[in-house]
Amino acid sequence: MNLIVDVGNTFVKFAIFKNDELIHKVSFELSEFKKQYKLLKKEFPKLKTSIISSVGRLSKKQIEIIDDDLKVLELNSNTKLPFKNLYKTPETLGVDRIALASASVNQFPDNNVLIIDAGTCITYDFVTDKNEYLGGAISPGIRLRYQALHNLTANLPLLEKDQPKTIIGNSTESSIHSGVVIGVVKEIDGVIDQYKEKHQDLTVILTGGDANFLSNQLKNSIFANSNFLLEGLNFILDYNSK
Amino acid sequence: MNLIVDVGNTFVKFAIFKNDELIHKVSFELSEFKKQYKLLKKEFPKLKTSIISSVGRLSKKQIEIIDDDLKVLELNSNTKLPFKNLYKTPETLGVDRIALASASVNQFPDNNVLIIDAGTCITYDFVTDKNEYLGGAISPGIRLRYQALHNLTANLPLLEKDQPKTIIGNSTESSIHSGVVIGVVKEIDGVIDQYKEKHQDLTVILTGGDANFLSNQLKNSIFANSNFLLEGLNFILDYNSK
Repeated sequence: MNLIVDVGNTFVKFAIFKNDELIHKVSFELSEFKKQYKLLKKEFPKLKTSIISSVGRLSKKQIEIIDDDLKVLELNSNTKLPFKNLYKTPETLGVDRIALASASVNQFPDNNVLIIDAGTCITYDFVTDKNEYLGGAISPGIRLRYQALHNLTANLPLLEKDQPKTIIGNSTESSIHSGVVIGVVKEIDGVIDQYKEKHQDLTVILTGGDANFLSNQLKNSIFANSNFLLEGLNFILDYNSK
Repeated sequence: MNLIVDVGNTFVKFAIFKNDELIHKVSFELSEFKKQYKLLKKEFPKLKTSIISSVGRLSKKQIEIIDDDLKVLELNSNTKLPFKNLYKTPETLGVDRIALASASVNQFPDNNVLIIDAGTCITYDFVTDKNEYLGGAISPGIRLRYQALHNLTANLPLLEKDQPKTIIGNSTESSIHSGVVIGVVKEIDGVIDQYKEKHQDLTVILTGGDANFLSNQLKNSIFANSNFLLEGLNFILDYNSK
């Protein structure tokens, strides 16, 4: 049994894999870290190994809570990886993007794969059919766009994500929903189209917190898998245990 | 001679039109308002009429500086407009979007026109060939996206706008440039494409501070006109003077 700890920009996730199968998942705020770990250990006392992936918000003290208890692999740029990393600055490649590329080479080893993670940020990552990671792009996610419109302008309200009924909004609210949601959909479809011009056989994975919200709005066909990052982390842990 | 005062989210603009021709334009920070007006009056002492369009940041005191001196039309939702406003909540329609629709009906009276203003926000506005304004969309502009990535995440740097060399960024910086700039380009092209599905004869105007930066990256053909909003304000002023 593996414990996967994924500390994103917004939430922390604990996931438990048993023989490559996700059997438990819980999502919570960073402030609840210790409490949630204790609850988890009560439910799964036999946990022995863990991988921690953090975009930088986890404190040393929080890491120690698990490190004192389990055999922990802390994912960073020195971790042995199952793909060839052609990023120019591998030491700055986000652990979340490392995990996504790892899931890709595990599940689609001989494909050209574009992984789109629609979470706090939207990350685009490209892995070739030769298991080479090339890089990609980072743009603001849906919630970030709503926040930016409110926080960084004089007059616009902060809205909750909502599906626009039409591209032509006829009020401030419906104009913002169209701009943010349809804007993201057009961006993602446009990026997929451009990759497809070069790689007709492209496999596209859509993951992240907004994957389900977005998947049936895209014109391109994609595989939606909201556990792709967790599966990648589990694979890295197994790969390093061998 | 008309003085146009355009107070946007980022800068203030003074523009002077003489017989429908823009003869002078200056852009500055809001804090310099009084100083800039005095300089302008020295250079153009014969100014008599003005229109003020403000997205909400101009104080009463600042308005009075001009109001005490010239005949001022303060643009708001009660102003007589040269188009039929079918916005559901006309009282909340931004003055900037009113100005753009006005320029459209003046310069392209019998066309279906999509106006894209790429500034602090990217606004999309649609005016039919029957001079009806329907509404549109609002999404974050280029600078806002760079700021959102930095301000609202744990680890990403704040970058200055830059043209990405390729869609596959191989460093944090080039990934962000790809995500923001190519993301905006794909969004705009995708939105234009969707409007064109319904209106094959669509005229597209691109304006705003990022119009020149974006215009030759788009696959759709557009008219780039960085003075479109100012021209619209000038037209509203003339329309209300008659």
